[in-house]
Amino acid sequence: MAELFGGVEGGGTHSRAVLVNRDGQIVAETDGPCTNHWLIGSEQCLERIERMVSEAKLKAGVDPQEPLLSLGLSLSGGDQRDAIGALREELERRFPNLSRSYFITTDAVGAMATASDRGGIVLISGTGSNCKLINPDGSESGCGGWGHMMGDEGSAFWVSRRALKAVFDCLDNLEAPPHGIGFVHEAMREHFQVSDRMGLLPHLYRDFDKAKFAAFCRRVAEGADLGDPLCCHILAEAGAQLARHVVAVLPRAQEELFRGARGLSIVCVGSVWKSWKHLSAGFIPVLERSRTQIPGIFSRFSLLRLRRSSALGGARLGAGNLGMELPLDRDGNVEVFYTQRF
Amino acid sequence: MAELFGGVEGGGTHSRAVLVNRDGQIVAETDGPCTNHWLIGSEQCLERIERMVSEAKLKAGVDPQEPLLSLGLSLSGGDQRDAIGALREELERRFPNLSRSYFITTDAVGAMATASDRGGIVLISGTGSNCKLINPDGSESGCGGWGHMMGDEGSAFWVSRRALKAVFDCLDNLEAPPHGIGFVHEAMREHFQVSDRMGLLPHLYRDFDKAKFAAFCRRVAEGADLGDPLCCHILAEAGAQLARHVVAVLPRAQEELFRGARGLSIVCVGSVWKSWKHLSAGFIPVLERSRTQIPGIFSRFSLLRLRRSSALGGARLGAGNLGMELPLDRDGNVEVFYTQRF
Repeated sequence: MAELFGGVEGGGTHSRAVLVNRDGQIVAETDGPCTNHWLIGSEQCLERIERMVSEAKLKAGVDPQEPLLSLGLSLSGGDQRDAIGALREELERRFPNLSRSYFITTDAVGAMATASDRGGIVLISGTGSNCKLINPDGSESGCGGWGHMMGDEGSAFWVSRRALKAVFDCLDNLEAPPHGIGFVHEAMREHFQVSDRMGLLPHLYRDFDKAKFAAFCRRVAEGADLGDPLCCHILAEAGAQLARHVVAVLPRAQEELFRGARGLSIVCVGSVWKSWKHLSAGFIPVLERSRTQIPGIFSRFSLLRLRRSSALGGARLGAGNLGMELPLDRDGNVEVFYTQRF
Repeated sequence: MAELFGGVEGGGTHSRAVLVNRDGQIVAETDGPCTNHWLIGSEQCLERIERMVSEAKLKAGVDPQEPLLSLGLSLSGGDQRDAIGALREELERRFPNLSRSYFITTDAVGAMATASDRGGIVLISGTGSNCKLINPDGSESGCGGWGHMMGDEGSAFWVSRRALKAVFDCLDNLEAPPHGIGFVHEAMREHFQVSDRMGLLPHLYRDFDKAKFAAFCRRVAEGADLGDPLCCHILAEAGAQLARHVVAVLPRAQEELFRGARGLSIVCVGSVWKSWKHLSAGFIPVLERSRTQIPGIFSRFSLLRLRRSSALGGARLGAGNLGMELPLDRDGNVEVFYTQRF
């Protein structure tokens, strides 16, 4: 048996696998595509996980037939107990030599295990969005994470849809946009290679691919960087939506989370956070207004970004599930990119 | 060749086919399931159309191998020129004996051809929603009809999602509902046979079926009938959304449409209109406020419901496409169910 612990970060667009030794050092890493089982089905999800982990074993110089000690999966879409149980059983049945034990959790919990063992808030805005509060005593509370049909507010999918919806509604005369649609309209034609709104319908229905659709968010971010007012407006709205998720879980946060030099720590995961300078215009005011809910205690918050994949947190949790504690490099794994004192 | 004209009304949940003689009399009718090609794919769409029309031929005592003079299809999702062209070619290739000629248009245009040849507004709220203005000179203008990913405001899908979203957001503490969620929450568990929100995810993603999901609207309508304030609120919001579609096309309406005893005629199609008494609370104020846009002329509107399937309008348009005019029974085909004078 390989004396290694595996971890997987499963996103709606990209995924990553890591192998870690007993000292918590990463010995191999591999990348892969979407492993959200809601988006691609559980069969393809499992096959992609197997491929990434086996490739990582080869990179680490380990025989792929030698099982890992544990494999911890931190998956977007990993929230439903029944589905998770079925995924784990399938992994055990189909890939008995991949790992001796499996542990599956959500992307949020995996991210937190990468950043801290004192708890805090994880706020994900990648292809989809999700927010999870993890208290120092281990109790959890969540908001969002229901996917694009019932949530995903502030995610790349949401930004893409919001921007395109502004074009549709303006041309329909259904709703006047807050700013001109020129940039977004042109970006729509270019990005999706369509001449009009009708051309977009296959991308929304017959050939719908959430990751591809959500990739339009990058064009909106580029527009905002160029100063397009509609793009800036939509990203600020996304920031406000993300902050509303934090406000939703605040009443459940234990006092300890507001103390310490950083104040409330919010671990920000996902590529939409690259546009923080545009998100901030909506994000900060919503958190500021929420202070009336938690009088006195809530005087500061810090936004953290992971410097290591949350596959590492997945590996830690998988090992922890066997009673083995992998060391946490608290300073190496995260960095503060914004602090606000009220 | 059968001396008959065929028509099909293709909905997102139900469909209907009619055969009509030269006097415009219906000689046979058949029913079928969803024929929206965006929802079920074009192959299944065509097969279902063929089956309905062939059954209607048998009912009319006509050999199914004898082609009709024309077949006019009034389809939800029938708005995209490329897709429509491909559908027509496939029909001609695969079913050469179904009809000698084919004509495909939208459900809205088919409904209008059933109701009137003087134009007006068609406002559809069934599984999805759509609004089309047809002027006396034949010019058209539309709003909506983009499906559940980009529109469908005020439709059964929208009502279902809106009601369920209120439950999700309330339990997430993301947004306080305008009224208690008790009735809708219980109806959700019963209708979808789930114990919690997690259980709903397969209905939203893996096993998503728009018609089935939209059927939850009936439970919301029942709740409103029983006086549940949240259900009433959501249906009033749906009414407001539908009215916004009318307001969106009003600037393009020719003056003639506002004259006559009925004022502006709005042909209301789809089962959500059965809840008019709840929709009206949102619908009427939005139209009333819009009068400032069309000063003087817009002093009255009438809501009409079709008493015959818009398959009949499809048949008329299919015949018209060959230069043959089927008579229109203007009084028999529609009835006014609401009139408002400002």
